[in-house]
Amino acid sequence: MTAPDIAMIDAAAARLAGHVRRTPLLRAPGLDAVAGRPVFVKAECLQHTGSFKYRGAKSAITALCTQSDVRGVVACSSGNHGQGIARAAAEAGIAAVIVLPDDAPDAKVVAIRALGAEIATYDRSTGDRDALAAAICADRGLPLVLPFDDPQVIAGQAGVGLELAAQAAEAGIDRADVLVCCGGGGLSAGIALALERGAPGLRVRTVEPEGFDDMARALRGTPGPNPTGARSICDAILTPAPGRLTLPVLARLAGPGLAVPDSAALRAMALAFVHLRIVLEPGGAVALAAALAEASGGGAREGDPVIAIASGGNVDPAVYTRALGALPG
Amino acid sequence: MTAPDIAMIDAAAARLAGHVRRTPLLRAPGLDAVAGRPVFVKAECLQHTGSFKYRGAKSAITALCTQSDVRGVVACSSGNHGQGIARAAAEAGIAAVIVLPDDAPDAKVVAIRALGAEIATYDRSTGDRDALAAAICADRGLPLVLPFDDPQVIAGQAGVGLELAAQAAEAGIDRADVLVCCGGGGLSAGIALALERGAPGLRVRTVEPEGFDDMARALRGTPGPNPTGARSICDAILTPAPGRLTLPVLARLAGPGLAVPDSAALRAMALAFVHLRIVLEPGGAVALAAALAEASGGGAREGDPVIAIASGGNVDPAVYTRALGALPG
Repeated sequence: MTAPDIAMIDAAAARLAGHVRRTPLLRAPGLDAVAGRPVFVKAECLQHTGSFKYRGAKSAITALCTQSDVRGVVACSSGNHGQGIARAAAEAGIAAVIVLPDDAPDAKVVAIRALGAEIATYDRSTGDRDALAAAICADRGLPLVLPFDDPQVIAGQAGVGLELAAQAAEAGIDRADVLVCCGGGGLSAGIALALERGAPGLRVRTVEPEGFDDMARALRGTPGPNPTGARSICDAILTPAPGRLTLPVLARLAGPGLAVPDSAALRAMALAFVHLRIVLEPGGAVALAAALAEASGGGAREGDPVIAIASGGNVDPAVYTRALGALPG
Repeated sequence: MTAPDIAMIDAAAARLAGHVRRTPLLRAPGLDAVAGRPVFVKAECLQHTGSFKYRGAKSAITALCTQSDVRGVVACSSGNHGQGIARAAAEAGIAAVIVLPDDAPDAKVVAIRALGAEIATYDRSTGDRDALAAAICADRGLPLVLPFDDPQVIAGQAGVGLELAAQAAEAGIDRADVLVCCGGGGLSAGIALALERGAPGLRVRTVEPEGFDDMARALRGTPGPNPTGARSICDAILTPAPGRLTLPVLARLAGPGLAVPDSAALRAMALAFVHLRIVLEPGGAVALAAALAEASGGGAREGDPVIAIASGGNVDPAVYTRALGALPG
């Protein structure tokens, strides 16, 4: 398997038209003031199921359904991929079995169940997610839809980049860093491929939580596992290693990777509450955090606007309240 | 003065094109499940300055600037109108003086100052807002921009209705109640006028906080002041009486008015957080509250979809945290 080509990306966009939301590119003077330069935020938290993951899930499932007589799918997910798969499967009239860690946020578990999917859980520290998923697939004769190392999933996420190319042109932006919240790199790679054709002056840069910056290290040419015992509240993007399909794309097209501490993600959530009135989860806020923290060193071009992809907004109230606690008043 | 005609509404829309955001019409299965029928939410909290008020302010100020040599404007506001005026004045390069109660939420005061406006405060219980504003106008030779009893303001708010008519058609909705958060009725009247031409099967219904349902009583033919000592957290829409321009419009075009308790507004804020990932303030959530509470009796047509205008999202963190406290987890 290889990453999708632009034809596959266009085909996915055609299948997804009328199903995905074209999410708005937001801006507020208050955020510009914090960052010291124009900050644009693509609000993928407003996507169906509350994250970009619905795009890739819809792309993969609609592709499967055109190719064969599929009765259902299995997916491993920290939550958002699971919600995307559950909704896309329900729309296609097929079953979905979602394998997720037993410490996934309540909001995500409730949402997946409400979409009609089955849930199978494992312990994040001791369980073997992949073995459990493989057993379910074998047992029921269902295909596994990977969260990022699947060409059709990446092709679906690329829709964010297709929309962004058009929105940036409308806003008069022809040169900018595009900061993308990064787990395995499916969203980042998809956007990079779409921008390569549609907006070559826009450059993707991955943003990860500190302690989980495996993609940034791989892009620097020093790959390797994350430190043992690292912790982060950014549950949606805590992946152990870059994707096999996504890393070559990003090595070719992306700038240096960035990493931010949990405290910066919480602050970005609070500033998005005040200035944009959108709800972000920690893992969906790291790109905005990097944009606001002036952490976009490593080659950022002075004065250029910066674009942050706000990738998801599925967050437990307790975590959100903690983020708001940093605000005055 | 009379309410705007459709030509004035179209002219305002032309002036505002490229300045206001076309806010999305959102929907989530989880909200449909609560309401027992399809619920669509027009997210005006994503408008510039965080509420629909920017539309009317921009309309009024651009109209003034084409008519005469205006050096600045004065506005009385519980906050959102003030933010809208401040931004529109700054864009026009003129001064803005905002008169607001000294208990307005911090977030709103900070935002108005950040937009470069001056602030003059009065005590909500003992002060005379109108006298203070009149004195400032006389002193400086500046016009007052009223929050709802101004034809150009109503014409600007009507843009929500123009967009909604198109979005409802795209979504296949040809018959629905459109629930609108209502203070003086500028937004409700503007939407009603726009829908009269663009979507005659869509019927506006005002939604107010309990204890401040002066519009609902006037629409029932029993006008009169709100009960003394009534309290509500819905600070943005606590007006003493219907507008003189807006009431005749709504008496002609709107269905029966609704009222909801503060507890329902807080619950709607929490459900918008979970299912839509948008931030609503109490006064911006009462329409959604009515949609979710099945409070849309008085002639609601069974099974029809319902549309709620989520009119604003400028809320202090403490109030928001209180709303989220009602959620599980």
